[in-house]
Amino acid sequence: MNKQKEMTGLAPDLIIECGLLLTMADEDKPLKNVRLLIQGDRIIDIKGRDEWLPESNKCETIDAKDSLVMPGLVNSHSHAAMSIFRGYADDLPLNEWLFEKIFPAEAKYINPDTVYWGTLLACVEMIASGTTSVIDGYFYEDSAVKAIHESGLRAIISQGIIDFPAPGIPDPLKNLEVGKEFLEKWSDFSPLITPGLFCHSPMTCSDRTISDAARLCQKHSVPLQIHLSETEEEVEETIRRTSKRPVNHLKELGILGPDLIAAHAIHLDNQEIDILAQNDTKVVHIPESNMKLSSGTARVSDMLKKGLTIGIGTDGCASNNNLDIFQEMDTAAKLGKITTMDPTATNAETVLRMATLWGAKVMRLDKVTGSIEKGKKADIIVIDMNSPHLVPLYNPVSQIVYSAKGSDVRDVIVNGRILMRDRKFLSLDLEGIMSKTRDIGRRIGSRG
Amino acid sequence: MNKQKEMTGLAPDLIIECGLLLTMADEDKPLKNVRLLIQGDRIIDIKGRDEWLPESNKCETIDAKDSLVMPGLVNSHSHAAMSIFRGYADDLPLNEWLFEKIFPAEAKYINPDTVYWGTLLACVEMIASGTTSVIDGYFYEDSAVKAIHESGLRAIISQGIIDFPAPGIPDPLKNLEVGKEFLEKWSDFSPLITPGLFCHSPMTCSDRTISDAARLCQKHSVPLQIHLSETEEEVEETIRRTSKRPVNHLKELGILGPDLIAAHAIHLDNQEIDILAQNDTKVVHIPESNMKLSSGTARVSDMLKKGLTIGIGTDGCASNNNLDIFQEMDTAAKLGKITTMDPTATNAETVLRMATLWGAKVMRLDKVTGSIEKGKKADIIVIDMNSPHLVPLYNPVSQIVYSAKGSDVRDVIVNGRILMRDRKFLSLDLEGIMSKTRDIGRRIGSRG
Repeated sequence: MNKQKEMTGLAPDLIIECGLLLTMADEDKPLKNVRLLIQGDRIIDIKGRDEWLPESNKCETIDAKDSLVMPGLVNSHSHAAMSIFRGYADDLPLNEWLFEKIFPAEAKYINPDTVYWGTLLACVEMIASGTTSVIDGYFYEDSAVKAIHESGLRAIISQGIIDFPAPGIPDPLKNLEVGKEFLEKWSDFSPLITPGLFCHSPMTCSDRTISDAARLCQKHSVPLQIHLSETEEEVEETIRRTSKRPVNHLKELGILGPDLIAAHAIHLDNQEIDILAQNDTKVVHIPESNMKLSSGTARVSDMLKKGLTIGIGTDGCASNNNLDIFQEMDTAAKLGKITTMDPTATNAETVLRMATLWGAKVMRLDKVTGSIEKGKKADIIVIDMNSPHLVPLYNPVSQIVYSAKGSDVRDVIVNGRILMRDRKFLSLDLEGIMSKTRDIGRRIGSRG
Repeated sequence: MNKQKEMTGLAPDLIIECGLLLTMADEDKPLKNVRLLIQGDRIIDIKGRDEWLPESNKCETIDAKDSLVMPGLVNSHSHAAMSIFRGYADDLPLNEWLFEKIFPAEAKYINPDTVYWGTLLACVEMIASGTTSVIDGYFYEDSAVKAIHESGLRAIISQGIIDFPAPGIPDPLKNLEVGKEFLEKWSDFSPLITPGLFCHSPMTCSDRTISDAARLCQKHSVPLQIHLSETEEEVEETIRRTSKRPVNHLKELGILGPDLIAAHAIHLDNQEIDILAQNDTKVVHIPESNMKLSSGTARVSDMLKKGLTIGIGTDGCASNNNLDIFQEMDTAAKLGKITTMDPTATNAETVLRMATLWGAKVMRLDKVTGSIEKGKKADIIVIDMNSPHLVPLYNPVSQIVYSAKGSDVRDVIVNGRILMRDRKFLSLDLEGIMSKTRDIGRRIGSRG
């Protein structure tokens, strides 16, 4: 009886027949012709195609025999709602871009409704390009929670904190109060969603604001995000104000640690890299935005040598202008090589880890997701390899990083739930979202 | 009667109903809701949707009312057949990559059959991602002519010349003889195909070889291609041998001029840029390959300031690893910004011109193609804008460069002939080509 129960317990309700499986678990080689067994929200086994399977009454099968199956991608830095500003302001000097275009547009157009629809647009784009987990940070994040929850994606969703009047927080003195309410409201909402806070930067948040935000996050055991040393000016300004470089300054504030997620992290000296490594602070590399805004190039190889955990992110659509992690991986690999003039730097395997297991580590969810292993949640994507740009196939990892595009993703599963199948969206209404966000775009000044 | 004839003469046999038309003719703004009239191989008119149309008995219509219509893209540097080595050797030191992997594989596997099928694979990939013209350079180029002719693409196809034993030319003393025969054989073959020669580099070709190749090209009024200053080592070696930097050396050989196409052109000093500009020598920027092989970064902004004509190319699939000019444009724009630390550098419009009209100028075909204008050949692509990553739409040019992917191309027309419609290939057998090139890959050592 017990044995029968155990058998029943092991029966999958979803089977993926994999032509090729990249588990991204440490040291694993690609597996050929295996079956991935999923029950409810989790992976229960990986079996050979000839192995015995427990009987199951209602089991769905995804045929990926001609395809490559791998963990869903992690976008470790995004401002999802900014999708409504995609292409609104390009090729401008940084200050003109920020102060004359983006900030005024945010002040005028960002509200709970536009954040909701903009985040939905970002979600459908992320699902379409194989992202299954995202770290978001913006304003009116209640709306982002609602949108991301509807999408079915896994996420850290962080309420923005800045010591200036911001969308939804006209009085900056109230920013921590809004943050506190946000954490309290969403802490137990969904196993897929972790609320958090996002301090804009050490330049735009006072020491007190940053310390208090960190304390709030600590109390709720959730991560704090911050933009760190994105520009040279930011470093100079911090030195002027505190006589310290930004990392040393944050260290003195006592906020460095494994729950701090530092986005961009470009202009770091050797000592700062050491300090981040010693504190296990997480770093997010955002190559395309950094290139497009001419912010600088993160020292990825140096940080990796020091053992830092680095994820990869797209930033918002005002500075990228898409949310395709495949393209971001390709750029990360190539930018790492040209920056160091070493063609072996930031190789395909490293970059793919940044976008999967290491991204999960940045989220502190590596026990849960980021690789395909027995017992982990089923966050899985299927890549259609039947395209001319993916033929022939010598090395699956380099094919994914250097040849594939987001549009090659055929199926997306998060937490055992199929969000996209044969490129049809099952959780979201694509046409409705595009129609609504086009309307918003027209109000802002778009053409169509 | 005459008038009637003229009317009949003006009747289109293909109409594209354009939601948005980017002509890429100088100074043109995007046109909304127009009709593009095509007769035979050429564009005969652009009309408003309400304007009178001549009657026509058999006229096909492409409905692109929800889409963006623009000139097809020009891939100004490729070794198409190398698609069979896609992902065969990545993340390696340059010499190991070249001498231990690529050269031996070429020696063993490159033959008329593999060049034919590899070029077909490249063609179907290029069509799928919106390329309508390509400059190719490789060995066994008779096979490339056959494949590209079947594909329906417009091309300059250049037989490789190198003073080492090469595929098809075991005795380098015969390389010019092979080149001469190639030019004679294909000069009058097809209005879509221009034969040419491709001297591998000033390091691997003697002065005599380069001069003689240039003379042969001059005789046939066709372009000569050369890899120029791709690596620092190449520059140093040329200085050691000739006491001159490569451009000065080529100038002394008397081969600089409007028919020389210099690929890569990375390590140039100011004087060399001036000399190239004075001679109207064409330059091809190849950002992704240059990054991946850590070759260096071309001084695109400096060259543009001097008035040089610059096209954009992908290189072969052993160093990129795809042939998607959309991705190449995005990288070119962002790399230009991060290299100069100026976010206004290599803006979207500039990069899109490099991939269209300026590419046509590199080919010396700007009277024929590269923009959508009355009287030009119909080399046109239709972009499906109905995807989440292309919503909303503020600026069509920046949307194409920064947000779109090759997979957004829906229809491709070259010389008035539809090569892809609704992503179905009309000139080539996709499944057959993938099957054949997978077989070739398996012989070389691929997994599937």
